Amino acid sequence: MPARKSLEELQCSVANTAELVGDQWTVLILRDAFLGIKRFDDFQRDLGIARNVLADRLARLVQAGILDTRPYQDRPPRHEYLLTEKGKDLLDVLVAFRRWGDKWNAPDDRFIRPLRHLECGEIMEGVMCCNHCGQPLDHRNVRVEPSLAPVSR
Amino acid sequence: MPARKSLEELQCSVANTAELVGDQWTVLILRDAFLGIKRFDDFQRDLGIARNVLADRLARLVQAGILDTRPYQDRPPRHEYLLTEKGKDLLDVLVAFRRWGDKWNAPDDRFIRPLRHLECGEIMEGVMCCNHCGQPLDHRNVRVEPSLAPVSR
Repeated sequence: MPARKSLEELQCSVANTAELVGDQWTVLILRDAFLGIKRFDDFQRDLGIARNVLADRLARLVQAGILDTRPYQDRPPRHEYLLTEKGKDLLDVLVAFRRWGDKWNAPDDRFIRPLRHLECGEIMEGVMCCNHCGQPLDHRNVRVEPSLAPVSR
Repeated sequence: MPARKSLEELQCSVANTAELVGDQWTVLILRDAFLGIKRFDDFQRDLGIARNVLADRLARLVQAGILDTRPYQDRPPRHEYLLTEKGKDLLDVLVAFRRWGDKWNAPDDRFIRPLRHLECGEIMEGVMCCNHCGQPLDHRNVRVEPSLAPVSR
């Protein structure tokens, strides 16, 4: 039987991302951040999350460079949480979660909040496309090529 | 202080998806399934995962309708695990994980396995686009509209 590998050894950026966003509260905090929520009490009120859990998840997101803090009040000192470029770049992940969830796992149609693309003005869904030809990807037309270094497979 | 809400009460398909794929072993199993791995021992060998953990994650994926089982041997009875349509539809999520992870969190360039789009033949990255106009999405040009029903915000 092969030795058990740690997740880090698997050297996989898919798993690395899952590690960061693979926590439900984290995903809900990120959703709220994309909706414009910035302050601890506003996250807390919106999510009804325990304050210690919220503080823990915000600290992890700051440590991962996904959120950054900015002071907005001196006495008492208070700061708000803003998405960094690295954080804003998670939009694709959240849109992909949402599209799949709405299609296969939606709790109730009435709770779906439509997305509007401000560039074309339409209500839309995100679709993952090839950055070369612009066509939508499909499991039948994507092939994973060998890596440049020998890996454990 | 508002009552703590359960994640289910938050009625959010983003969080529902995170619940399903927000486990690192699950994501690695899905990655392997997209790479064509089907059998228990092959998943086990590739991931070096403990057999009880693998059995648990596979059972959850079958229960969620993401993998389906198909017998391939009678004596002793053995079955393999295949992605369902619901499972294949997670390609966008894995491509989004991967793109973000490669960009912001890649362990080592040598371990990145390029993706080829068989339709245009190019090595590519996935990019999330609007299904109406085909343009790439960006946090500045996506707006979340109110849901049809009153929600808790």
